[in-house]
Formats: sequence, C-alpha cells, structure tokens
Amino acid sequence: MKIVSGGVCAAKGFKASGIHCGIRKNKAKKDLALIVSSVPASAAAVYTTNLVKGAPLTVTKQHLANGKAQAVICNSGNANTCNADGIAIAEQMSELIAAPLELAKEDIIVASTGVIGQPLPIAPIADGIPALVAGLAADGSADAAAAIMTTDTVPKEVALEFELGGKICHIGGIAKGSGMIHPNMATMLVFITTDVAISAEMLQQALSCDIAKTFNMISVDGDTSTNDMVAVLANGCAGNAEITAEGEDFAIFAQALNTLTIDLCRRIAGDGEGATKLLECAVTGAKDEAIAKTVAKSVICSSLVKTAMFGADANWGRVLCAIGYAGVAVDVDKVDVSFKSAAGEIAVCKDGSGIEFSEEIAKKVLLEKEIEIVIALNDGIGAATAWGCDLTYDYVKINGDYRT
Amino acid sequence: MKIVSGGVCAAKGFKASGIHCGIRKNKAKKDLALIVSSVPASAAAVYTTNLVKGAPLTVTKQHLANGKAQAVICNSGNANTCNADGIAIAEQMSELIAAPLELAKEDIIVASTGVIGQPLPIAPIADGIPALVAGLAADGSADAAAAIMTTDTVPKEVALEFELGGKICHIGGIAKGSGMIHPNMATMLVFITTDVAISAEMLQQALSCDIAKTFNMISVDGDTSTNDMVAVLANGCAGNAEITAEGEDFAIFAQALNTLTIDLCRRIAGDGEGATKLLECAVTGAKDEAIAKTVAKSVICSSLVKTAMFGADANWGRVLCAIGYAGVAVDVDKVDVSFKSAAGEIAVCKDGSGIEFSEEIAKKVLLEKEIEIVIALNDGIGAATAWGCDLTYDYVKINGDYRT
Repeated sequence: MKIVSGGVCAAKGFKASGIHCGIRKNKAKKDLALIVSSVPASAAAVYTTNLVKGAPLTVTKQHLANGKAQAVICNSGNANTCNADGIAIAEQMSELIAAPLELAKEDIIVASTGVIGQPLPIAPIADGIPALVAGLAADGSADAAAAIMTTDTVPKEVALEFELGGKICHIGGIAKGSGMIHPNMATMLVFITTDVAISAEMLQQALSCDIAKTFNMISVDGDTSTNDMVAVLANGCAGNAEITAEGEDFAIFAQALNTLTIDLCRRIAGDGEGATKLLECAVTGAKDEAIAKTVAKSVICSSLVKTAMFGADANWGRVLCAIGYAGVAVDVDKVDVSFKSAAGEIAVCKDGSGIEFSEEIAKKVLLEKEIEIVIALNDGIGAATAWGCDLTYDYVKINGDYRT
Repeated sequence: MKIVSGGVCAAKGFKASGIHCGIRKNKAKKDLALIVSSVPASAAAVYTTNLVKGAPLTVTKQHLANGKAQAVICNSGNANTCNADGIAIAEQMSELIAAPLELAKEDIIVASTGVIGQPLPIAPIADGIPALVAGLAADGSADAAAAIMTTDTVPKEVALEFELGGKICHIGGIAKGSGMIHPNMATMLVFITTDVAISAEMLQQALSCDIAKTFNMISVDGDTSTNDMVAVLANGCAGNAEITAEGEDFAIFAQALNTLTIDLCRRIAGDGEGATKLLECAVTGAKDEAIAKTVAKSVICSSLVKTAMFGADANWGRVLCAIGYAGVAVDVDKVDVSFKSAAGEIAVCKDGSGIEFSEEIAKKVLLEKEIEIVIALNDGIGAATAWGCDLTYDYVKINGDYRT
C-alpha cells in the first residue's frame, strides 16, 4: 500500500471541482464542491447521532436507500439546519446538479456545512451549477477539498494505491472538520471515493466498523455536530471481482479504508479550531476495549489536559483526573502515564502516583507539534487510541463571534 | 428568610480563621483555613464521584462515620492527591489541629485543594497551626473563605437567618471553585455551618437531596475534580427541637439550605476560571425532570455555546445542537429558545426553526453579566436549571501553565 496524489480523483472514473458561488461573502473562499463518478457506484454513509440533523442528511439518507449514488454536492458557509424550508432546499440542490449530469436526484449525496439556523439561499447555488459542472476535472480534488472547508486552516485530502485480486486499486478522501467535533457519531464531513468493486452492503459494513475506531475517536471541542457525515462511493472501475462477502479481499479493502481514515482523523484533529498541537491518547492494559476507548476519549476531551498541552505543561495530574471521572472500571492505583513526541518519551506517573522527572526534558517533549499521551492501565489487554488537539486562545477567538 | 453577614460564623457557636502558612509561594495569599464549632456538631458530607480521590476525602469519610465533627481544616495550593503518602499526611493534618483544640482527630474534617500529584509538605502546616488557632474569631469567615481560594477571583461566602419552631436560626457557607468543575459529583469545596439542631441522618438526607439540584448542576469546564466535597456542620446552638424526621421543620431547614446553596452555585459559576459572564440555563416542558436536567447540563457544558456567549453572539443554533446531542428524548421540532438578561428577553427560535429577530437587541441582551438561556421543550412538565459561565481567553491562559 502506498500514498499517492489525487485525493478523491485518485480512483479511476472520478472527477471533482470546487468554486465560489456566493454563499460565503469572501470571494476568495470556495463554497461549493462536486465529486462525480463516470458510472453508478455503490454508496454507503454514516451520519451524526445528533437529534437535530441537518436537512441534507435526511435527504441523503433517502437517496441512498437503494445503496447507489453517482455524485456528491456540498456547500460550505451555511449548514441548512433548523430552517423550516431545509428539506426543500436540499432536494432542490440535488435536482439542480442532477439535471446537467443527466442523473436522477436520488443519485446525489447532498451535504452542507456552516452556520446553523440561517436560511440557505438557493440562488447562488443555481447560478453556480454551470461553472461547477464545467470545472469537473481529474485533478479537481484540491478544489473540492478547499470548497468544503469552514474554519479549517488547511484542506485535507489523501489517497492510497493498493492491490486487490491482482488489480491495482485506489481509495482517496477529502475531509473538513475543525470545530463541533466529538466522538460518538459520524463526525465532520468526509467524502471517500474508490474504484474497488464492492456491494453496497459490504461497503456499509466496512464503513460502519471502521468509524468506531477512527472518526468516532476524535474530539476537538466536545460538540457533536448536526450536519456531519462520512460517505463512500465505490464505482468498481478497478475491475476487481466484486466484493460481496467477508474474506481476504474484504480484509484488504477494510485495511486500506482504515489507513485512509486514520490519516484523515489525524489531519482533522491536528487542524482543530485554534489548535497548535495534535494530541494522540494511546491507552493499553484496559479490562476490555470499551473501557480503553472511554478512557482515551475522556482524556482527549478534558479542557484541562488540552490547555496544559497548549502550555507544554507536564501536568499529568489532570490526565489521572480525567481517567478517574471517565465512569468506567479502572484501578487507579495501577495507572502509568508518560508523554511522548519526536523529542523523546518521559514517564511522569507510576502506579497512580507521581514520580520524579526532569521538567526540562518534559518541556522539550511537550513543545513538539504532535504529542502522544501514553496510558498503561495494567489491568488487562484492551487498547484504544483517540485523537484531539490542544485548547488555545484562538479556539475562543474563532468561536466567540463566528457568525460575523 | 433574610441574608445576613458573617458567612460560616453567622451561626451561633462557630469561629473561623485563615492564614498564610507557606504552602503557596505568594505570601499575600492565605493558604490554610479553619472552622470550629464550640460544641460537637452533627456532620454530613458528599464527595466527588471521581475514582481518583484526594487523600483528604478518604480520611474525612472515615472521620464522619459516626455522624459527628467539630472542626474543618483546609489548605489550598496543593490537592494532596496521587501522592503515595497522601493518607498519612491528611491524618497528620487532622492530628495537628485536633491537639490544640482538645479534640479527637476523628472530629476533624480535612480538605485540600490545588495541584494534583505533588507531595504536600506537612512542615508549613505544622508551623502555621498556632497562628491559625490563635486567629479563630467570630468574624473570621472572610479569612477562611480567602484561604480556600485557588484560581477564584473573589471569595465566596453567604449566610441566612430564618425561623424554625420559634427559634432564630442561621445557616452560612463558604465555597471555592473556579476550574475543574462539572456536574454529577459533589463539586468544589463548600463548607456550611448552621446552629440548627438536626440529627446527622437528616442532615445527610437534606444535603444529598439538595446537591442533586444545585452543586451537581454547575459546570465550568467539564472536568470532575478529584478533591471536592460539600460538608455541613450543624451544632444545635439555636436551641430548636432537634430535627430527627421529615416534617415542617425539616422542610424549613431544607428550604434554607437550598437558598444558600443556589446562591453559592451562582457565585461559583459566575467566578468560573476566566469567566466574564454567569450563564443560567432554564429548561421547562421536558417529558420528565431527568430529561430537563440532562438538556440544561448539555447546553451549559457546550464549548460552542460558551464561546458564543463570551462574544455576545446570539448563535442559537449551537443551543439547538447541544440539545440534540444531549442523548435524551426531545422532540426537536417543538423547541423554543430565547435569551434573557437585565436588558430584556429576545426570542430566537420557535418550533426548532429560526425566527427573525433584531441582532441589535440580541447584542444588548447578551452584553450583560448574567445571561439566562431559556429553553421550552413544550413536551411535558419536567423542569431544571443549570449554571455555568462563558469560555474565554483567560480560561486558556489560567490553565495553559497552571503549575508555574
């Protein structure tokens, strides 16, 4: 398996584009993205668990009822959520893009991201469709990735090449997500394309299993978004024998998907709103995996841990504290903690109590951009990893007056 | 019922003091507090639910096994938590103060607050005891309130006078708590004194019922502390007939306790680390009280709601979002939201969708120091209130390098 360029266009048969259509005031900011497969594709998606759901999710869920789709349209700048006319607008978006692509509206995955509770004007989207379609290109992934960004500081795209049943296959994805990101849902917007031939059922199974260990293990700010989804299109252009059941091919595909989604998770967490550092919390030795997951999430979500990491302060007591309130069975007297980065690893807590360590070395470790909080519970074999970021002045600044 | 001065010394038979003994480097900051009753008192307490518990809590719990206590000693600057010698140190603190007061160590409630995982030196406490005892005074509540502060910006004390069975009674309290404050535990440190005669059992019942609606409904940062407790001493000096069962007298006492604790809750939340505003979230119309509580806490805990309030931004979509991910049964299409303050009230959401409102008036409402987020779920009669504060640059600053 190797990383290749091309993002969502790395897989055969996919084109993408991204333009500024006018939903956002800033003309330098693209706000409408399109991804199209040249042939019908198996489609799967997971959605936010928030009861307040963006209208596009409801519409997309209906469209994917038959397990097929051929295009994704997504705007940024407005979430089309909590609006009385939301469903109608999301359907209109689907129809507007289906027509020039000569598809049915049910072939469209529709998504929106941005501010909640302000009516989404359809006019800029309608006006933008011709340019959006004209812009479709095999090197259009970067434009699409840019067009779905909200407070993201960098576009997020990655693609992989791998072999499956003797055929060269590809999988690629773009993602947005910076704030309002929290475990236990299909977080953020992620669109993944692959030229692997796989049934819609097996694609959904692969995706649903994968997110439990990837996108559901990220937190930026503890807020579960209303609008987020992860959608995959698999168009079969690689020519492999279609995957219709578990087995070696399915395992290879699941592994490729997992490599891709972990990469996107790290990009999303590392670009969390205001973040200066990517935090990774690796828990081992839990009684079971569920406990390991809960502990990892609890630590990665702690505002006090996050601010300490921002300050490069080895305040490990806050890590212990977050383990203690996670609400799961942990023998706190067995817990070991260390901090790890490119600058080295330093043990700070053994058997639940502090040990002497060099503050100077700890500072050096914590001044790096990627920090691993290593927790050994020494009580079993359950393990899990969660990703997050530090909490900074800029998070407050970005969110203190987001709408203006 | 009326508010009176005197804090924990308002009730007959109580004296208090607070000194700087040297646990904290800053000599201008008091770090050791003492509250003493002239006679043995019924005692009750509730403790954090964090599995990582400060050693003083374990010791206090043992001391209160007989339902009696006569003094409280509390230091700030060091939590005496996650230290191998923690229990021994907490016992030593009890013995050191029991001796000059001519009490048994089991009569002492011991508490510590501050940084976790650094050994608490006993020497400054031992050296400070004579001055601490010499300083005991009927007007010593303010000194004690100051000595338990950590990142608090203001000391917190309040007292009430009320009548019970023809006798004038008093109840007063001091509190500390600014960060690491979250619902679902006995939060922060709160010491309450009263001259009411009440059995230890009924005192515990009154306290346990009360905190479910008061201290367990506050959140500053979502971190459940390791060290916090609420303790009450009732010494009977008011001369009322001892309360030993439910009934009119118990109801009057519970009402006085509730008035006191709500006042302290508002002081704690409003002085949350870095806070510029007190937030109160009042939920009505829930299917039941548990749902109302969960929704109120979810909103008050949302980083995005908290930052919006800091920016005086009427971004009500974030309120809807936090209702939606609360994980309880809410019909989101029935939800009404308004913002309320001394400057007025403005409706922003009706039946789950946005309504037109004046941004100018909304700004005026949200620029006040105390903001009420009013949520009508229109789906039953369950109601609850939670308290919190905004999330600001100063929260990040205070916590980015707490230990240095």
